[in-house]
Amino acid sequence: MLADPRTRAVLDELTARLPADRLVTDPDVLASYAHDEAEWAPWTLPVAVVRPHSAEEVQAAVRACLATGTPVVPRGAGTGLSGGANAVAGCVVLALERMAAVLEIDPLERLAVVQPGVVNDDLRAAVAEHGLWYPPDPASSPWSTIGGNVATNAGGVCCVKYGVTRDYVLGLQVVTGTGELVRLGRRTAKGVAGYDLTSLMVGSEGTLGIVTEVTVRLRPLRGPERTVAGYFDSVVDAGRAVTAVAEAGLTPSALELVDRHCLAAVDAWKNMGLAADAAVVLLGRVDTPGAAGDAEAAALQSAFEAGGASWAAVSSDPVEADALFAARRLAYPALERLGPVLTEDVCVPKAAVPAMLARIEEIGARHETLIANIAHAGDGNLHPLLITPAGDAAARTRAQAAFEEIVAAALELGGTVTGEHGVGLLKRPGLHAELSPAVQAMQAALKAALDPHGLLNPGKAI
Amino acid sequence: MLADPRTRAVLDELTARLPADRLVTDPDVLASYAHDEAEWAPWTLPVAVVRPHSAEEVQAAVRACLATGTPVVPRGAGTGLSGGANAVAGCVVLALERMAAVLEIDPLERLAVVQPGVVNDDLRAAVAEHGLWYPPDPASSPWSTIGGNVATNAGGVCCVKYGVTRDYVLGLQVVTGTGELVRLGRRTAKGVAGYDLTSLMVGSEGTLGIVTEVTVRLRPLRGPERTVAGYFDSVVDAGRAVTAVAEAGLTPSALELVDRHCLAAVDAWKNMGLAADAAVVLLGRVDTPGAAGDAEAAALQSAFEAGGASWAAVSSDPVEADALFAARRLAYPALERLGPVLTEDVCVPKAAVPAMLARIEEIGARHETLIANIAHAGDGNLHPLLITPAGDAAARTRAQAAFEEIVAAALELGGTVTGEHGVGLLKRPGLHAELSPAVQAMQAALKAALDPHGLLNPGKAI
Repeated sequence: MLADPRTRAVLDELTARLPADRLVTDPDVLASYAHDEAEWAPWTLPVAVVRPHSAEEVQAAVRACLATGTPVVPRGAGTGLSGGANAVAGCVVLALERMAAVLEIDPLERLAVVQPGVVNDDLRAAVAEHGLWYPPDPASSPWSTIGGNVATNAGGVCCVKYGVTRDYVLGLQVVTGTGELVRLGRRTAKGVAGYDLTSLMVGSEGTLGIVTEVTVRLRPLRGPERTVAGYFDSVVDAGRAVTAVAEAGLTPSALELVDRHCLAAVDAWKNMGLAADAAVVLLGRVDTPGAAGDAEAAALQSAFEAGGASWAAVSSDPVEADALFAARRLAYPALERLGPVLTEDVCVPKAAVPAMLARIEEIGARHETLIANIAHAGDGNLHPLLITPAGDAAARTRAQAAFEEIVAAALELGGTVTGEHGVGLLKRPGLHAELSPAVQAMQAALKAALDPHGLLNPGKAI
Repeated sequence: MLADPRTRAVLDELTARLPADRLVTDPDVLASYAHDEAEWAPWTLPVAVVRPHSAEEVQAAVRACLATGTPVVPRGAGTGLSGGANAVAGCVVLALERMAAVLEIDPLERLAVVQPGVVNDDLRAAVAEHGLWYPPDPASSPWSTIGGNVATNAGGVCCVKYGVTRDYVLGLQVVTGTGELVRLGRRTAKGVAGYDLTSLMVGSEGTLGIVTEVTVRLRPLRGPERTVAGYFDSVVDAGRAVTAVAEAGLTPSALELVDRHCLAAVDAWKNMGLAADAAVVLLGRVDTPGAAGDAEAAALQSAFEAGGASWAAVSSDPVEADALFAARRLAYPALERLGPVLTEDVCVPKAAVPAMLARIEEIGARHETLIANIAHAGDGNLHPLLITPAGDAAARTRAQAAFEEIVAAALELGGTVTGEHGVGLLKRPGLHAELSPAVQAMQAALKAALDPHGLLNPGKAI
């Protein structure tokens, strides 16, 4: 089984450098660490999985890989949707799930220091006890880890008002491509000492360094949000309402789009009784306190109506409002019950949202592909979900063609191929279409500078 | 005069590639472009100044320099305080002041596209006509340019609530170290396509690329702010009040500290009648609308009192409030009338503000150096101003020793050597104390990757 001398060498090195229970080579276990949730992205079995308990153990594992020329693929919870955590040939997977301690919460400086394996929702709950809030909230927040969120610069529902993961990362501890354990960034509110290596690491998918500790910025806990719901007869109408919200100068704390395919799938699964008499639902939230917040919620409702809502209202029932947002979060697993789901993640300018949604409908119809839509509509970040019946190769080919046309349409409308899921493996062709050759050369030069041996998650991100 | 063959070669190349009026070699004019406002940072005369009118002309000038091995030093208004724009031996200064057009303001996407020579206040005024706001507001805002602000990741009064320049830069057009003209970043609200070269360029002081266009994110224009003033008997008391504000969980829209040396100097210059019966004034602002804002202003006043204010009040007189903030802005030029001012820019954790202010007092006393204090106190960013009588070499030596001890004290208290002015030349020794050798090696590797000929503002920033 261990025929390959390099494999033997790296296993020997890992065995020598780490406590015995950190190393896994059981093929059944390896399989469970071999890929993330990206449908159709290629993967292979790693030669080993290492589950380190400390930064020093991560460093030891990376040094074992460097010494033997072995690729290293870091991994959080494996909830990624672009293949960024997929194992590559001959690699060691570094699973950071056991480094899951919240090391420090400092209410005065409004920061927390955490290990990379801390689950997003767990961090949010921990800081809430101190009256603080960690905003980035990807749909995977009950499972995904802060390390994985940093690797992909994860977004979520809050981004339309509060920004993405990069906006909350003050500092990092990282094992570098030369096996050094370094601290980047700071604990102060401001600082411009040297190039911003922290921002560079965020979103680099483990290709420039392995994150072993994260210092995040926090905000004060918010009061309750108001929910504004709007029903629309078409996704394009809903897109017009999104543009109307921007035109009205509003900044809702959430502005999500969920179409009838999603609501029906959630109903079929969870029997939540959501199926609306509408093709699309827009869900807005407002967290401004007091009378100003009431006025903002009313203005949001007006913008929905101006955009062509068949019905819109500020919700007076928090249970109903929470159910609608739960449906937003459950849409992806609910749709997966219908067959493999290929998840898109394009982001377009707000003015282009109606046009992009129309293009998605047209592309789906032309390729006879069922496309459900969920979207962080308020920042133009759309997640068309391409659903194919399991085992239908022809449907898969059609869906693949539709996927590529959606990416091309987003670029044509001034958008980007990935808003928040990362490039991973799935968006590498799109990335090459988006960035000029000169910019791609700059990206490659950075990779070579910080990972001179080319062993950190090779073949991903750029 | 043009004895040096390299100088002759670069002048020939520039003459061949650019319209005649772009090139300046008159020594009197060269002198006015030779340095920024950093006291004591070394500089020399450049061999030429180029004043390009377009990105293509910047590219032509950079290519002329690359072809002849000539260093290029980019420059905005020259208001920097770290020597980042100082001419180095044999260099060409690229003065970007004539590229001063606001190219686009898009209210729906909340962004503006500007040339690097646009003055900060001019951008703010231009977008205000569309109901929008560009927050970063360094004290140099009436003169400094967006390009210079990007180069140093400039901060200002607003940062305590609204962040720094990097938080507002969505995209850049840049001439690279290999003479390519490239676009980095995006126009969409979100995007994770490739490494974040945009954030890397911000704060890199022209050492990784020359910025020829900036796409900035905007916010909706705010309503009027309330001002809360507090008088204190000592800077350390004022520092305690700053900590009390953080402990109360408040996020004022400004929290500035101005000491009696500053107020007296402004009074002596502008006769504004500010001289308060206090050693230090804290100036807070609150921009939350409505009753919530009233409550926040009252809480800020309470925090000032809890910190030991001898007097504190929410200002009912906007003229008085504006005068106090004007004094904050005028402090630096007013103090310069007393003699050369060496400006510090340390940033410490909020909890360390009282200790840091005490250390500054002690250091000033021990080195018999007059140190005035202005500070963006709310984010721990302190600007001790070391004033020496003109021509007094012994005083200058003492001030230099005090400067270095202040930097060391900030690091000891968990801070950084530069909060917002940049490393330039003055903070290079401090930077080497702040960053580990491994991180310095990463910085050098990035520089070599993006500026392989080492000609972009050499010797600065890292």
